[in-house]
Amino acid sequence: MVALESHEGEDAMIDFYAARSPNGRKISIMLEECEAAYRVHFVNLEQGEQFKPEFRRINPNSKIPAIIDNGTDTPVTVFESASILIYLAEKFDRLMPRTPAGRAECISWTVWQVANVGPMFGQSHHFRSTAPEKCPYAITRFSKEAARLVRVMERQLREKAFLAGEYSIADIAVYPWIRVALDSMARNTPDLVGETPNVRRWFAEVGERPAVQRGLALGR
Amino acid sequence: MVALESHEGEDAMIDFYAARSPNGRKISIMLEECEAAYRVHFVNLEQGEQFKPEFRRINPNSKIPAIIDNGTDTPVTVFESASILIYLAEKFDRLMPRTPAGRAECISWTVWQVANVGPMFGQSHHFRSTAPEKCPYAITRFSKEAARLVRVMERQLREKAFLAGEYSIADIAVYPWIRVALDSMARNTPDLVGETPNVRRWFAEVGERPAVQRGLALGR
Repeated sequence: MVALESHEGEDAMIDFYAARSPNGRKISIMLEECEAAYRVHFVNLEQGEQFKPEFRRINPNSKIPAIIDNGTDTPVTVFESASILIYLAEKFDRLMPRTPAGRAECISWTVWQVANVGPMFGQSHHFRSTAPEKCPYAITRFSKEAARLVRVMERQLREKAFLAGEYSIADIAVYPWIRVALDSMARNTPDLVGETPNVRRWFAEVGERPAVQRGLALGR
Repeated sequence: MVALESHEGEDAMIDFYAARSPNGRKISIMLEECEAAYRVHFVNLEQGEQFKPEFRRINPNSKIPAIIDNGTDTPVTVFESASILIYLAEKFDRLMPRTPAGRAECISWTVWQVANVGPMFGQSHHFRSTAPEKCPYAITRFSKEAARLVRVMERQLREKAFLAGEYSIADIAVYPWIRVALDSMARNTPDLVGETPNVRRWFAEVGERPAVQRGLALGR
């Protein structure tokens, strides 16, 4: 793993293990929102670096993103994007509501992304675009579930400006996935685009944030 | 939604929306571990109660589990099992390590379960057992990923007694899914059972806890 990008110099507090993917971009956006000092290590997934013992010590599940926070008495290793988002929100005291009800809502929507949107959008894309065999049943199954999830977002964003009321880690978790999915929706399910004006309103608003734009530029 | 089981009487502090499923059982186990006062509301998924407006106000994603904690100034609604586990661990100050590194490891493994084990075991079971069409490619895809995840657990449990070192919400998140998967593994991937003695050691140890046994009895 070679450090390709350094933000704030060699004594960067946080080592960030990344790849150019929606899950990686959640964390680059959050680090930018927190104005954190961090150093990016791109993990070469094509070459299988994620399965090497030295990376497994960072994330036993062999996936990006992961971070090591060196700015504490003992370095803290965190893996799984939702876990990293919660960790950074608490460390920097940002982007998570402070009331018990607001905090619970924010964490619920953040976990909703990783337990639903991530896996289902991911499988939908796989079976539609990259699977070596066509399995129409699986394509329909995952496309329908992905569409249901977008409608869940739409209903929430009809009531609230952001998923948990105010802009939070929940929006950061969802944004990079919706960014990829909007193209696919326009091609494959144009009706769904018409039904979800609040998702597009939210998408435009989040995308205007400078930290989001800096985070998306990861590895460009 | 009809309250079928009351634990600690009518003034129960926590309303728990449940069904007889691995995700429901995570929360019944945790409530028992915390010796919480709670009331179970079974949501009739076959009749589509999860899509009714009154349930969507509790979980906009129309799934169980969800809780409402009435023991706070303003009632707190929490959905997604990992979010509920984190909430209850913080409320009752139990089953989550207190050091920053331990807490981060515990939340990472808890999220690992909901972002990986839950969706992939779930799809593996669906394509193998309940899908109306056979799609061999999908069966192989999800079975392989499920097996990889069990091996990730095995490596971790070779080093540590429990997923995050000490017994925690991470083990509670994984246990009900491994409980269902062990039967399927014995039938479909007997080699994997032989390769994972530490998963079985852990499974036996967690299963001996009285709170786990009480939690599993949910709705029996």
